[in-house]
Amino acid sequence: MSPTNVGGIGLVAEEVHIGKQAPEPLTLEGIRARRAKAGKLDAPTASYSDSDMFKAPQFPDLLSPESAARKPCVLKQAAKHLKKPGLVSLGGGLPSAENFPIERLSMQVPSPAGGFSHTDNLKEVTIGKHDVRDHQGEGVLDLSIALNYGQSIGSAQLLRWVTEHTELVHDPPYADWRCALTIGSTGSLEAAYRMFGDRQRGDGILTEEYSFSTALETAAPLGLRVFGVAMDEQGLLPDKMDELLSAGGARRPRVLYTVPSGQNPTGATQSEQRRRGVYAVCQKHDVFIFEDEPYYFLQMQPYQKGASGSTTGTTTTKPNGGESTTNGDADVEAFLRTLVPSLLSLDTDGRVMRHDSFSKVVVPGARVGWVTASEQVIERYIRHAECCSQGPSGFSQAVLYKLLDEEWGHAGYLRWLAHVRDEYAARRDAILGACEKYLPGRWFLGRRRRRGCLYLWLKVDHTRHPHAASKSLLALEEEIFDSCIDKGVLSCRGSWFAAEYDRPLSGLFFRTTYAAASEAQMAVAIERFGDAVRGSFGI
Amino acid sequence: MSPTNVGGIGLVAEEVHIGKQAPEPLTLEGIRARRAKAGKLDAPTASYSDSDMFKAPQFPDLLSPESAARKPCVLKQAAKHLKKPGLVSLGGGLPSAENFPIERLSMQVPSPAGGFSHTDNLKEVTIGKHDVRDHQGEGVLDLSIALNYGQSIGSAQLLRWVTEHTELVHDPPYADWRCALTIGSTGSLEAAYRMFGDRQRGDGILTEEYSFSTALETAAPLGLRVFGVAMDEQGLLPDKMDELLSAGGARRPRVLYTVPSGQNPTGATQSEQRRRGVYAVCQKHDVFIFEDEPYYFLQMQPYQKGASGSTTGTTTTKPNGGESTTNGDADVEAFLRTLVPSLLSLDTDGRVMRHDSFSKVVVPGARVGWVTASEQVIERYIRHAECCSQGPSGFSQAVLYKLLDEEWGHAGYLRWLAHVRDEYAARRDAILGACEKYLPGRWFLGRRRRRGCLYLWLKVDHTRHPHAASKSLLALEEEIFDSCIDKGVLSCRGSWFAAEYDRPLSGLFFRTTYAAASEAQMAVAIERFGDAVRGSFGI
Repeated sequence: MSPTNVGGIGLVAEEVHIGKQAPEPLTLEGIRARRAKAGKLDAPTASYSDSDMFKAPQFPDLLSPESAARKPCVLKQAAKHLKKPGLVSLGGGLPSAENFPIERLSMQVPSPAGGFSHTDNLKEVTIGKHDVRDHQGEGVLDLSIALNYGQSIGSAQLLRWVTEHTELVHDPPYADWRCALTIGSTGSLEAAYRMFGDRQRGDGILTEEYSFSTALETAAPLGLRVFGVAMDEQGLLPDKMDELLSAGGARRPRVLYTVPSGQNPTGATQSEQRRRGVYAVCQKHDVFIFEDEPYYFLQMQPYQKGASGSTTGTTTTKPNGGESTTNGDADVEAFLRTLVPSLLSLDTDGRVMRHDSFSKVVVPGARVGWVTASEQVIERYIRHAECCSQGPSGFSQAVLYKLLDEEWGHAGYLRWLAHVRDEYAARRDAILGACEKYLPGRWFLGRRRRRGCLYLWLKVDHTRHPHAASKSLLALEEEIFDSCIDKGVLSCRGSWFAAEYDRPLSGLFFRTTYAAASEAQMAVAIERFGDAVRGSFGI
Repeated sequence: MSPTNVGGIGLVAEEVHIGKQAPEPLTLEGIRARRAKAGKLDAPTASYSDSDMFKAPQFPDLLSPESAARKPCVLKQAAKHLKKPGLVSLGGGLPSAENFPIERLSMQVPSPAGGFSHTDNLKEVTIGKHDVRDHQGEGVLDLSIALNYGQSIGSAQLLRWVTEHTELVHDPPYADWRCALTIGSTGSLEAAYRMFGDRQRGDGILTEEYSFSTALETAAPLGLRVFGVAMDEQGLLPDKMDELLSAGGARRPRVLYTVPSGQNPTGATQSEQRRRGVYAVCQKHDVFIFEDEPYYFLQMQPYQKGASGSTTGTTTTKPNGGESTTNGDADVEAFLRTLVPSLLSLDTDGRVMRHDSFSKVVVPGARVGWVTASEQVIERYIRHAECCSQGPSGFSQAVLYKLLDEEWGHAGYLRWLAHVRDEYAARRDAILGACEKYLPGRWFLGRRRRRGCLYLWLKVDHTRHPHAASKSLLALEEEIFDSCIDKGVLSCRGSWFAAEYDRPLSGLFFRTTYAAASEAQMAVAIERFGDAVRGSFGI
């Protein structure tokens, strides 16, 4: 595959190869055909080359025409010349930092040493406009850098941090994995759909039969048909996915969107064995995977009956401040061992694009996350981001870098994650305790298996409803939802999450969350919910 | 047009009407046809209705199938129930602010009273996690709000500010204009392309013959053909646009992308008369306008020869702190009068979607801007943003709100804009002074007419080149660009901005910017540029 010149702009782009798995073994005839397609090898003195230029393209037919057509942003590429010593740039229209009206930014943050208390042991963290210039050798990020234009992959400072974190937690089992910062997983998922899906090609997407409503709403206007895969308490069923992919008929979907941990809306968490099963089916049918994991670090110990309001059932963490010695990291290592391995960590083929998010574990308003995938996928993602987001907010990046890298360090952040998980585990215990009291025997997923997330998926046995024969599930769902609002509790209707909204509902479901309400409010809310259900059933 | 129920989710969406201009006068037969299409009027007791439901759709064929298919985000819509007193929400999975690891954010900012000095009279501005709860009646935004999920239109706090600013500066001449915050104009332009352009329909876009490279790079992968309109020193020529639109042949473009003030890359600013001419041609051919205005407030007084390094030729501003009395606003009112009216301010039809940005006048790293257009366009934009960005960073919104609304106020911000314009005017004077010295008689746009932006567009008379007959313009351009790099100056090649890159170049151009380099560096850089040109010409 010879490099081709891009529109006379002096930049060289290679044809894009996605992922790792060659679709067919190479033959002698294949080499001849490939050389013929690539044309004469144009390689004057000291030309750059590497083996990737001459290897088989990977997932060759998966990239959308839109994504394949993207060329590098010429203005951002020109930044490569800035390395030349003494060069004066009259190139990019980057405003002068002298005209930035923010001289210094400070924040007050909790510390691992203080057990992440919101009042004790708070630390003051500061970033100035010219820290790098004024304090050579100390700070590596300041406002003059963070608040100017950047590269769309994100700042090197925060990219280093997420890359190290990803290697520490997932250690992807192939060499050329890369990360790129995102504006949150809503944005990176939309980009992924557009990179791998095309309306005219009739592309489709596999997902859990009940799936994250925004992910469904993102796919629909792009003309991508969604296929729901049957689930059990551990989430999607590999055998059912295999059946669906083995059936003939319409163009089969080539992409899976899945939330393996604490799935939204059902709260199901795939075990390691389940994940291996899902991955194997994707290998068999050459399906690419979008792994969306906002709740990955909120994997809790199973709920113990009667534990309401306590934090029993969660691993106790030992806060002991910042990066510590090898022995002092035992709590962090124990925490990491409680996590079911990610699909990324099982991904020998480079067929996973993992979407990580700070929204549930730091703050949603940062609008920062990151994706991890093979170099070729990340390269296409960055081309997309250059014409869409230009990367995340510099304010967000500055705050996260100072907090996660300089203040907490990796160990401190993992301790924070364990702390947040424990906070939410206490909330989970509270809502499940309320369910024991007000909704005896009515919920769907076995409480012992609930490893948590932020949602409780409630199943109501509609077959006992006095109007089960005459009213549709949708009508019953609406009646109960409206009655809930009347009684003063907002929940989410199961139908909002149905992957295939033109198919009849498989049951009467409601999603509740324990993310935000207080323990007392949750008890009131669940009681009201029970009243609404009983009212509809005439009990 | 009767309201239609969206997929059983209990929400009602209307068919979308874009803009204001009815394509055809209504006839009696038209009413019958419209009623037949809408079906039976389903209006039980106390049904909601308004006249818009029964009026003609506007720009009916312009919206892309993707945009037309968007439905409201069901989870964000459910927030409407939160108004009910006493309601407990187990709905949206909004994390608890108790788990946000940032208790307080402070920033040091320059003040109008201090003449916006970076060292004197700096003000400390602080936003806490629970300011609204803890200081009832004072703050209206705190970190518990700003850093959680929000609506994709942006926070009400900052939306109020940009709406007031837009009314103050542009006062759109129709009633139902709306604003929405964006993640910057790169993102909002991409959304606009996808809202109004469709690959399968063969849609195209009009723009200046030399146009912003990223805007071109955004359109190309979407399959939207770009048509370049000839320009003069005031930017695009209405007559040439009329000719292009009047010609038969392929499907004519229905959208114009233009940068009326300080156009990138040429620096051309359309006069009021020119803008009226452009608008009239758009009316004649029913073309929708994307008005991209990052440099709007950098409109400078014409350059005076020999003024290098001074700020003569700019309006002197009188800093006098915050919102002041009516008499004290005279300087601000004078500043506003120096601005050529925007296309938005001339838009009687609702055919303009204006893209504003904080990037050049506050900081690019905020990744915040806003769009202004008719209610129907903004509604579609928000539907798009819900599945893409979810609105800008909460950190950015918090900082901008505190700075622009609470600290500076509208008058203070306008004084800041005048101050930044003066800063850049001094830089412009410096680079033009260097051009007088090192590039006699070689630049394209008349120096007296230069009302500024951040770019200087240099034209080299290639007809005098010794190899003019044997070498292409592209080859000459590359030779001079490479020689510039060798000599230590980075500029941008004119071909990077060519709207139609498959058409021969109309001249030998280079874009330079005076945004970032110091006065001394600019002199060095322009001297090197001159050397590179003379070297190529063998002078």
